[in-house]
Amino acid sequence: MPSRFELANAIRALSMDAVQRAKSGHPGAPMGMADIAEVLWNDYLKHNPADPKWPDRDRFVLSNGHGSMLLYSLLHLSGYELSLEELQGFRQLHSKTAGHPEYGYAPGVETTTGPLGQGLANAVGMAIAEKTLAAQFNRPGHTIVDHNTYVFLGDGCLMEGISHEVCSLAGTQKLGKLVAFYDDNGISIDGEVEGWFTDDTAKRFEAYGWHVVPNVDGHKPEEIKAAIELAKSHDDKPSLIICKTVIGFGAPNKQGKEECHGAPLGEEEVAAARQQLDWPHAPFHIPEPVYQGWDARKQGSAAQSEWQARFERYREEHPALAREFQRRLQRKLPADLKSEALQEKANQAEESIASRKASLNCLNELGPQLPELLGGSADLAPSNLTFWNGAKAITPETPDGNYLHYGVREFGMGAIMNGIALHGGFVPYGATFLIFMEYMRNAVRMAALMDQQAIFVFTHDSIGLGEDGPTHQPIEQLASLRSTPNLATWRPCDAVETAAAWDAALKRHSGPSALVLSRQNLPHQTRTKQQLGNIQRGGYVLKDSEGTPELILIATGSEVGLAMDAAAELEQAGHAVRVVSMPSAFRFDGQEAEYREKVLPSSVTKRIAIEASHRDYWYKYVGLNGRVIGMSTYGESAPAGDLFKHFGFTVENLVQEARELLEG
Amino acid sequence: MPSRFELANAIRALSMDAVQRAKSGHPGAPMGMADIAEVLWNDYLKHNPADPKWPDRDRFVLSNGHGSMLLYSLLHLSGYELSLEELQGFRQLHSKTAGHPEYGYAPGVETTTGPLGQGLANAVGMAIAEKTLAAQFNRPGHTIVDHNTYVFLGDGCLMEGISHEVCSLAGTQKLGKLVAFYDDNGISIDGEVEGWFTDDTAKRFEAYGWHVVPNVDGHKPEEIKAAIELAKSHDDKPSLIICKTVIGFGAPNKQGKEECHGAPLGEEEVAAARQQLDWPHAPFHIPEPVYQGWDARKQGSAAQSEWQARFERYREEHPALAREFQRRLQRKLPADLKSEALQEKANQAEESIASRKASLNCLNELGPQLPELLGGSADLAPSNLTFWNGAKAITPETPDGNYLHYGVREFGMGAIMNGIALHGGFVPYGATFLIFMEYMRNAVRMAALMDQQAIFVFTHDSIGLGEDGPTHQPIEQLASLRSTPNLATWRPCDAVETAAAWDAALKRHSGPSALVLSRQNLPHQTRTKQQLGNIQRGGYVLKDSEGTPELILIATGSEVGLAMDAAAELEQAGHAVRVVSMPSAFRFDGQEAEYREKVLPSSVTKRIAIEASHRDYWYKYVGLNGRVIGMSTYGESAPAGDLFKHFGFTVENLVQEARELLEG
Repeated sequence: MPSRFELANAIRALSMDAVQRAKSGHPGAPMGMADIAEVLWNDYLKHNPADPKWPDRDRFVLSNGHGSMLLYSLLHLSGYELSLEELQGFRQLHSKTAGHPEYGYAPGVETTTGPLGQGLANAVGMAIAEKTLAAQFNRPGHTIVDHNTYVFLGDGCLMEGISHEVCSLAGTQKLGKLVAFYDDNGISIDGEVEGWFTDDTAKRFEAYGWHVVPNVDGHKPEEIKAAIELAKSHDDKPSLIICKTVIGFGAPNKQGKEECHGAPLGEEEVAAARQQLDWPHAPFHIPEPVYQGWDARKQGSAAQSEWQARFERYREEHPALAREFQRRLQRKLPADLKSEALQEKANQAEESIASRKASLNCLNELGPQLPELLGGSADLAPSNLTFWNGAKAITPETPDGNYLHYGVREFGMGAIMNGIALHGGFVPYGATFLIFMEYMRNAVRMAALMDQQAIFVFTHDSIGLGEDGPTHQPIEQLASLRSTPNLATWRPCDAVETAAAWDAALKRHSGPSALVLSRQNLPHQTRTKQQLGNIQRGGYVLKDSEGTPELILIATGSEVGLAMDAAAELEQAGHAVRVVSMPSAFRFDGQEAEYREKVLPSSVTKRIAIEASHRDYWYKYVGLNGRVIGMSTYGESAPAGDLFKHFGFTVENLVQEARELLEG
Repeated sequence: MPSRFELANAIRALSMDAVQRAKSGHPGAPMGMADIAEVLWNDYLKHNPADPKWPDRDRFVLSNGHGSMLLYSLLHLSGYELSLEELQGFRQLHSKTAGHPEYGYAPGVETTTGPLGQGLANAVGMAIAEKTLAAQFNRPGHTIVDHNTYVFLGDGCLMEGISHEVCSLAGTQKLGKLVAFYDDNGISIDGEVEGWFTDDTAKRFEAYGWHVVPNVDGHKPEEIKAAIELAKSHDDKPSLIICKTVIGFGAPNKQGKEECHGAPLGEEEVAAARQQLDWPHAPFHIPEPVYQGWDARKQGSAAQSEWQARFERYREEHPALAREFQRRLQRKLPADLKSEALQEKANQAEESIASRKASLNCLNELGPQLPELLGGSADLAPSNLTFWNGAKAITPETPDGNYLHYGVREFGMGAIMNGIALHGGFVPYGATFLIFMEYMRNAVRMAALMDQQAIFVFTHDSIGLGEDGPTHQPIEQLASLRSTPNLATWRPCDAVETAAAWDAALKRHSGPSALVLSRQNLPHQTRTKQQLGNIQRGGYVLKDSEGTPELILIATGSEVGLAMDAAAELEQAGHAVRVVSMPSAFRFDGQEAEYREKVLPSSVTKRIAIEASHRDYWYKYVGLNGRVIGMSTYGESAPAGDLFKHFGFTVENLVQEARELLEG
């Protein structure tokens, strides 16, 4: 039987060899954390390499994602379908072993990490999901949800602000099954961290209400083991295990220095490390006994079988709950859910209300039908209108709730939502003002990159928010959202389109949606049955001219009403004007060419786009011969009506521009 | 003489009355913090209302910017040019009293606040600037820089991640002249914060190395005073004074509740508050003795005169230093600075290097001539190449340095840079990877909104960064930067354009610049003298055809070389092709129409834009008849060459697309 040190060295060897072969990568973290990983994976981690999606597995997150070879080595060694060839293809096109762990590439990668701090936040989200799912589904004598979330993190994660947001919340929520391992190696890219990072991290985390195990030698398995035991014995608080480690452990000349963080060690140093570690094997050769020492398949399969048996007993006693549990984990909407009915209902109500209010109406309809909805807001619930009638706060006393008061923590919220989505069993939605999307921007991107169903509710969507002024008025934010691959952005023009947007967001399992909503009331638009159906196409003719239009007005959200009024006025003056409502360019661009051509015929080059947002985006639809009425400066502080007038969002101005274009 | 309570009540009355009149706003924070503000402003703050820009004034930042009426009241009462009429015009168009304090609107507003946490970060930046400026200019017996930075903040600021980043760094930097007042009122928008914010804040800040004064009654002037004395006695650590307050203090039925946070109290409650506070005066009426109690003009003028006398003595003994001090505070570049020479030098060198390397070359030239450059990177110095030959780290031991190791704190860096720029005496530049611009996104926006000269260096600008993969490869980030009003974005194609970009950024005092730079080498482009001159126009003809072009290729950065090669190939095949290099669309759009028409003649509608970034942006220049070779998905992990090929950024593909367009 190989020693623990030998088992850990397999990680070190694979990591330094793969980085060397790729001529790029990060050997330091895997070599430094190998001993910790060895103890955790071989003695504690509950997982089954043969079924990486087994719902009751422990979650393992490598928040310091640049150390990806640590994770790939662990997956390979413990028996996941990740071959030696894949490890040899580290950082190459079409391999499963990308430079940073990418969700969906290699089995067993629970989340995409690399952007520092977010893996930790995802882990907090996973731990919240576990706790809430357990509270919702476990029954006396039947524990079907019971797993831990383990996360590795480095100095970088702890310097990032998001670590504060999510660890503070994890403390408040008393996430006792979250265990974080801090790779306290004293090195970051600029060198020795003492010049820029002097926190007393133990004290900091105690201030958050965490249980801290300080001063663990990260190269001594027995100390690591004792620390994990301590962590597991505190189930009322998340635990932070502070492991003193040597970055690049085993590389005799580079260990402990920045040099080994983010570049290959070099052939010579790799050879020297082999000697130092007493690892005489060729690159990518793992001796059979070492493989055996790591193999987690038998144990994992047994653990899963045991769980399966438990689940069968649960199913017998609670058949409806078991069905519901499976439905939610399979990410299926209830068979009898009629989310299309939202749109129909809004259409009949004919209300001229703010789209944020229309959104709340949707939530009040959907909430009772969708227990998987896990809502929240970054301390703007009364403004975002996300706390629906049946919302119940998740707290340490009521973990079975369905709503998180995230506090003023936008970025943390976004990344926690991603963790909740990744965990499974929930469809998270979370809200803030559209401008503060910027605080959480990279989490929105990560949701899209990972194909996760997270629903971002962004209210107060333009200068229409009024008096709060330039700091709060979005200008360029829609361009940013719309340019984000795989993000479905919606800016509905009334309650009917808002309902359509919610319907679409719920049915979109392949990525996130952003619902961009107004603070102020929006006029109800009347539609034919066909028009109602076309909303889901993202862009459609809301009002047509008789015969070929001379002019097409394209608008979204609060500007659709203006376009309709202007079109009526122009029509009275004898012009043939079409109005296209474009709540989701993402959806519209995904329609077949024939439909798009029907809505925006190439022959009609006189086009005006109107949106109280940055103008540049719209040239894509109006071209060089069209015009855009949009923003190109920041807003101002004043009542909304004054601002729309000040910035030219009026029927008069639109009619004027149209006339110039028609007569030009 | 009015009592302290009466003086404080003037703030309360003005705040509740202005909010009431505006029918929107936040009375809670001003009413809760009035007593603290009264003690600080009347007993400690060094400022001169008659000269709000006096360089040695104390800085006061209201990080909880929604409480703007607190600041407007203070400015009005203490004698700034901010009339009662302006207060009555709170939150109205063209008034100086915007919903949140906007830099440049009312005198005495040191920074725009509202986006939570960033005011605190600005304050940290100001304190760094003060300390470094003092270290650079003070001489034995001559202290010309010596002021404090005071910041008010609330629960929201402390929940935001950025508070962690900047307070951790402030502790490391031992910013003893920074004093923060925490409005610990237990209320945020969702209600009582205990449900989502349970930090032991004192302990947290002690962990950062701050001096904490806990448990101060924020309504007892003597306690507040004692706390400030304590804070001032600790000059080796920043101080946090934790003030227990009652939000909306004085409003008998709403105080202590969320109700008074962000909405008018209502006529009835305003009247009740008048009674409760024993403030019988009409709205906006301040009794003369109260004005007298607040008036800071005489004291302020005396303080400034005293400083001026000191400065004259300094000038006598250190004339060159005094001149340099004034030059830097007037934000003038050295008269003999030849930043244009950078471009000339790069042109002669003809090097094919990465633009990040070309940027380092510029810094090595500029650094010795520009002591106001205050650089930094968010722990990526060796990758961003921002640590030039003469860079010297700012530390508690060497406060006279010129470079900040910000640590892995992008957002903190951006907002600290803004604080440094606002303070004056420095031109900050700071770097991270372009993708992590997202972490600091709103600080970039705030620089632009405040017209501040901050230079953001964003390297690793596309899939060209290679193996680090999708998480690190920017796609939609350029669209976001380019849509940001008042931000000058540059993506240079070689060392020559990089030099031009640095030149432009240095000369641009009216707003920030973003320099978007490559990781990989870029071929040197040969230019005529006229072409060299045109770089500053943001877009120019780099290669022209004989006669009218049939096709225009528009490219930036690493794709310019491709466009040049493709044009050569198309020319050989008999096509007349123009190549336009567009390093800065911001600059190009600012040129007169005639120039733009010359570069991109409307008659030439066959246009292809090529950029390894999101495609949508470019329709603005190519219209509906043109094509864009760009990204519309996320990247992959692989060597850069493989990626450019994989995603179609090849001469072959460009030639192919051009042929289709030409023949179509």
